[in-house]
Amino acid sequence: MRLQRLLNIDLPLIQAPMAGVQLHGLAAAVSNAGALGSLPCAMLNAAGLRQELQALTSKTSKPYNLNFFCHTPPAVDVAREAAWREALKPYYSELGIDPAHIASGPGRQPFSTEMAELLDEFRPAVVSFHFGLPSAELLARVKACGAKVLSSATTIEEALWLEAHGADAIIAQGLEAGGHRGMFLTDELSSQLGTFALLPQIVQAVRLPVIAAGGIADSQGVRAAMALGADGVQIGTAYLCCPQASTSAIHRAALHSPAAQHTALTNLFSGRPARGIVNRVMRELGPISLLAPAFPLATAAIAPLRNQAEGQGSGDFSPLWAGQNVSGCKAIGAAELTAELALGFIQ
Amino acid sequence: MRLQRLLNIDLPLIQAPMAGVQLHGLAAAVSNAGALGSLPCAMLNAAGLRQELQALTSKTSKPYNLNFFCHTPPAVDVAREAAWREALKPYYSELGIDPAHIASGPGRQPFSTEMAELLDEFRPAVVSFHFGLPSAELLARVKACGAKVLSSATTIEEALWLEAHGADAIIAQGLEAGGHRGMFLTDELSSQLGTFALLPQIVQAVRLPVIAAGGIADSQGVRAAMALGADGVQIGTAYLCCPQASTSAIHRAALHSPAAQHTALTNLFSGRPARGIVNRVMRELGPISLLAPAFPLATAAIAPLRNQAEGQGSGDFSPLWAGQNVSGCKAIGAAELTAELALGFIQ
Repeated sequence: MRLQRLLNIDLPLIQAPMAGVQLHGLAAAVSNAGALGSLPCAMLNAAGLRQELQALTSKTSKPYNLNFFCHTPPAVDVAREAAWREALKPYYSELGIDPAHIASGPGRQPFSTEMAELLDEFRPAVVSFHFGLPSAELLARVKACGAKVLSSATTIEEALWLEAHGADAIIAQGLEAGGHRGMFLTDELSSQLGTFALLPQIVQAVRLPVIAAGGIADSQGVRAAMALGADGVQIGTAYLCCPQASTSAIHRAALHSPAAQHTALTNLFSGRPARGIVNRVMRELGPISLLAPAFPLATAAIAPLRNQAEGQGSGDFSPLWAGQNVSGCKAIGAAELTAELALGFIQ
Repeated sequence: MRLQRLLNIDLPLIQAPMAGVQLHGLAAAVSNAGALGSLPCAMLNAAGLRQELQALTSKTSKPYNLNFFCHTPPAVDVAREAAWREALKPYYSELGIDPAHIASGPGRQPFSTEMAELLDEFRPAVVSFHFGLPSAELLARVKACGAKVLSSATTIEEALWLEAHGADAIIAQGLEAGGHRGMFLTDELSSQLGTFALLPQIVQAVRLPVIAAGGIADSQGVRAAMALGADGVQIGTAYLCCPQASTSAIHRAALHSPAAQHTALTNLFSGRPARGIVNRVMRELGPISLLAPAFPLATAAIAPLRNQAEGQGSGDFSPLWAGQNVSGCKAIGAAELTAELALGFIQ
């Protein structure tokens, strides 16, 4: 019960924040169902975040989680950017895109003072970070607003680091998880562990509550995670087909197709490894490319291909984020799904 | 209970066959403890196997499992073999090995008619295969001797294939598992799933009993696997430090060192991806090398380095097979360990 007490929630279940496929609608529905809804903030500017927070707080009075990325923005590497665009050139030609008119820029912003000001105003119950934690100064501001702080660990070392640096609970993100790997002390992919191995070892290593993530698709998965010593679970993929998510029709169709059996970690869409359904661009360039600019700069050059292809009904250039088990993706309301998943907490 | 009935065992727990680190001693101890002990046969010739079977059957009258590899032996690729030896040349110099005197040859043999004759004689209760199944003719001989047939699936597709081709139960081998990946329908590493995602999807896909493998280190892991729908579990790594295993002192020391936190899939030691503790040769050549000859031919050229280095007390060139969770490795008897693991079957 310590996670429920810490986060002031009825069910120790967190809906994973999923930037690009959901906003306040999903978060509010999950929070109202007694679990913890999450609003992904990495792709919102301050004005957008304020708008989402106003909508969210008008729909729920329950605790919710705001998720931020806390990467260090990289310097632009002109040569690498050029090489990346060169690699994408055949696709620009094929889709009739003029490479001269492609914007550049980061796309995703790390947590900042400006965002912290919004926390003072809205006082969320929970703030979660991906890629470690922000600076001690910013973290102190988050805590001062009363929020409990979560972050993801992908190795035992990262879990110990998060405990030592002020997290209030740790998300053990197994290799099965969809979307961005939260890894921040290493970029070595072989360091990444499956949930079955990662979760109990983090539970053994830290005193903080541990939240299991990665591959949990249904109530049986919830029960298994609890058997491995988790204090709660974080589930993303299963929520992707809820009507409250903004997942595109192309993405939903991919999740329900045989293609979803094969996901891979790819850095093509952002510059950092993230798990998605293998599609044409991942197959043709290889899911991990040394040419892709550092996170989050890789996004700019591939985004026009995505937009153009999606306009033609194709997900060939889209990040089709998904975990390794999509069998829990159902087109049912988020509250109903939450109730189904919560059966896993009952012995 | 259907796995217990199928295999005629008290505990639905299989000690994973681990070629190179155990023989009949471990298998007998586990079978006598009410679980299913396994004898790895891939590195034994017929005379060696007969000797082991005589020893095993003198120590237990309980059911046991014989494990065979069933790869198709590759043709020798002279150019690749030369490139591989060239890559290893600096190490030959360093360790004072004359490359002119290195034997070549396969090292591991696939299941054969000669082996099948021994089955007729000893009539094992269970025969398990790695890398698919043998030819229909050989498989029929195995079944005719009364053995139940198991094989490993690393994807849902492989599980369906095994069910269609005559397996009696399926081992769902999650990515966390130590030793060789059982993959046989693909060599694409991104197809490999963590236990948390693989196991329930195979359970959903097939009618046969499913045995969970990969990352199960203790009774909590057993309980979690059962919660995910497994009919039983297969556990290897936890048995590596039992006195009945023949695991080398170097390997045991590595398992108890911080180095064991970092395993990776490597093809350097055999030509096929297998999970082991990252050591010097894996770090320096990269764990996956395109130069390594096809399985099992890569072994011959690296074996003298291993032998020489081990003679000097170093595991720099040894296959230090281990799964992603070594926390269950204890220097206790195999019967005691089996009893501890079996607590996971009790609600």
